[in-house]
Amino acid sequence: MRIIENISEMQRLADTWRAGRERIAFVPTMGFFHEGHLDLMRTARKLGTKAVISIFVNPTQFAPTEDFESYPRDLQRDIDLSTAVGTDLAFVPRVDEMYPEGFQTYVNVTQVTENLCGMSRPVFFRGVATVVSKLFHAVKPHIAVFGQKDFQQLVSIRRMVKDMNMDIDIVGHPIVREQDGLAMSSRNTYLKPGERPAALRLNRSLKEAQELVDLGERNATVILKAVNDRLTTGGGATVDYARLCDPDTIEDVEVISGPTLLALAVWVGKTRLIDNRVLLLPA
Amino acid sequence: MRIIENISEMQRLADTWRAGRERIAFVPTMGFFHEGHLDLMRTARKLGTKAVISIFVNPTQFAPTEDFESYPRDLQRDIDLSTAVGTDLAFVPRVDEMYPEGFQTYVNVTQVTENLCGMSRPVFFRGVATVVSKLFHAVKPHIAVFGQKDFQQLVSIRRMVKDMNMDIDIVGHPIVREQDGLAMSSRNTYLKPGERPAALRLNRSLKEAQELVDLGERNATVILKAVNDRLTTGGGATVDYARLCDPDTIEDVEVISGPTLLALAVWVGKTRLIDNRVLLLPA
Repeated sequence: MRIIENISEMQRLADTWRAGRERIAFVPTMGFFHEGHLDLMRTARKLGTKAVISIFVNPTQFAPTEDFESYPRDLQRDIDLSTAVGTDLAFVPRVDEMYPEGFQTYVNVTQVTENLCGMSRPVFFRGVATVVSKLFHAVKPHIAVFGQKDFQQLVSIRRMVKDMNMDIDIVGHPIVREQDGLAMSSRNTYLKPGERPAALRLNRSLKEAQELVDLGERNATVILKAVNDRLTTGGGATVDYARLCDPDTIEDVEVISGPTLLALAVWVGKTRLIDNRVLLLPA
Repeated sequence: MRIIENISEMQRLADTWRAGRERIAFVPTMGFFHEGHLDLMRTARKLGTKAVISIFVNPTQFAPTEDFESYPRDLQRDIDLSTAVGTDLAFVPRVDEMYPEGFQTYVNVTQVTENLCGMSRPVFFRGVATVVSKLFHAVKPHIAVFGQKDFQQLVSIRRMVKDMNMDIDIVGHPIVREQDGLAMSSRNTYLKPGERPAALRLNRSLKEAQELVDLGERNATVILKAVNDRLTTGGGATVDYARLCDPDTIEDVEVISGPTLLALAVWVGKTRLIDNRVLLLPA
C-alpha cells in the first residue's frame, strides 16, 4: 500500500488515476482501526478500482474539553491492517499542512446538525464537514463510504455533498458489532472490563425499542421511557441523549409513522458511546 | 457558445474535457456584462483551452434589504457578448436547482471577511463563498479568474481555495475603468446623469492618496482624512467606508510600511459603489 502525506502529491495522483478512468472509492478515518473500518475498506475495494483511505485525527471536530490528545493512535498497525484488506493508498496528512497558520474557512451544515450530537458537541459537525470537504478536495473520490454508527454524521455529509454540488456518491455502511452486540468504536478501548455490562445496554435497548414497535407501540415518549429505563437500570451509565428522529431531517418525532431513527449517546464511566437503529414498522 | 443549465450535465462535460486533457478556465459572474467582465473572459480564453463562464444572480449574497430583485439582468445580450469574445460555454443554473428546498450548507471564510464590506453587508461573503464553492464543484475548473474591483472577495476566495484544498489556480484581474476613470460595475447602470461627478471622486481620491504616499505621507489617519474630504466635498456622496488595510489579512493599518489596500464603498444617491487601489511605497 502506498502512503502519501502531501496534499498536492495526493491531488496529482488522483488526477492521474482519473485521467486513466480509474474509479476512486474513499474511506476517511481517524485511524485505530477495528473490524468496522476494515469492512468500510472492503466495501470501497468492491465499489472502486482504487481504494483509498485517509488517516487523520482531526483537531477541529474536538472541543477543548474532549479527547483529541488522548484519542487512540497506532499508525503502523493501521497500515498493516488496511494493507491486508487490499487498500491501494493511505493519505496521512500532517495537522500543520491541513490547518496551517491563518486557516479560517469552515463548512457548516446548519439544520440536520442541530439535534443529538450537535447539542452536546457544539463544534463537532462544523469540524467534520470542514475536514471531509478538505479530504474530498485532496483525494478527489468518485465514491466515499461512511459508517452508519455515526448516523447523524452520515446524514450531514450527504446533505453537504448535495448542497455543495460535490460530484461524489456517498455510501452508508451498516454498523459492525462485537459478538456481544457492542457497536465497534475506536473509543471502546477506553472501556474498563467492569463497564462492559453497562455498555451492552445500548444495543439491548435498541432491540427492545424495535420489539415495542413490533407489538404496536407508536408513542415516542413511551418508547423513550423504556429505552432510558433499560440504559440506566443497573447503574454505571448516564444518558447524554436518547431520541427518536426523522432519519432525513434529524428532527424529533412524537409518533412513529414510518422508519424512525432511535439515536443514543451514553456515558459509561469516562467513555461516551453512541449507537443507533432505524426502527421499522411491521410489514 | 454552448449553454448548460443543469448541474450534472455541466459536471459530465467537465469530466469529458478533463479526461481529454483540456484546461478549464472559469469566470463566475452575475451577468449584465460590461468591458470588465469581457476582459476576465479574454484572460480565461488565454489561460485555458476551454473558457467557461457562469451567469447566476446569487440570492444568498444579498440581504433582504438589498437589490437582488432589481439587480440588472439581460441574458440574451450577455450570451451575445460572451460568444463574441470566444467563450466556449455558459453555465446558467436556475435558482431552484442551486438552492432547492432543504438547502442548509454554507461556507464561511471567517477573518478576511470581517472588515470593509463584511461590516456593512453581513451575509455577503457567506453567500459568495457558498455559491463559488458550488460553481467550482459544478464546473470543475483548473483556473478561475476574478476581478480586483471586488478585492476583499478575491482575497476571501483565495483563502477559501487554500483552506479547503481546492485544486484551482485563482487569478486576479486588474480593475477595468471607463474613460473617465469610473470603475466598471453592473451597478453603474443605476447612476443618474447628475450623479456621475460624485461617482468619479472615488477613483480621484484613490489617485490622490497614492500621491500623498509618493510625497512621503505614511500616517493612515492623515491619508484617510484627505480621502474622505475628497469623496464628500461637493456633496451627493455618503461614505460607507474608506479604509487602509493589509492586502492579505484585510486588517486595518495605522502606518503605511508596504503595499497597502485603500478600499472604498460610497453611496452615490441610491447606488453603492466600491473601488480600491493598492498603494505602493516609492521605489
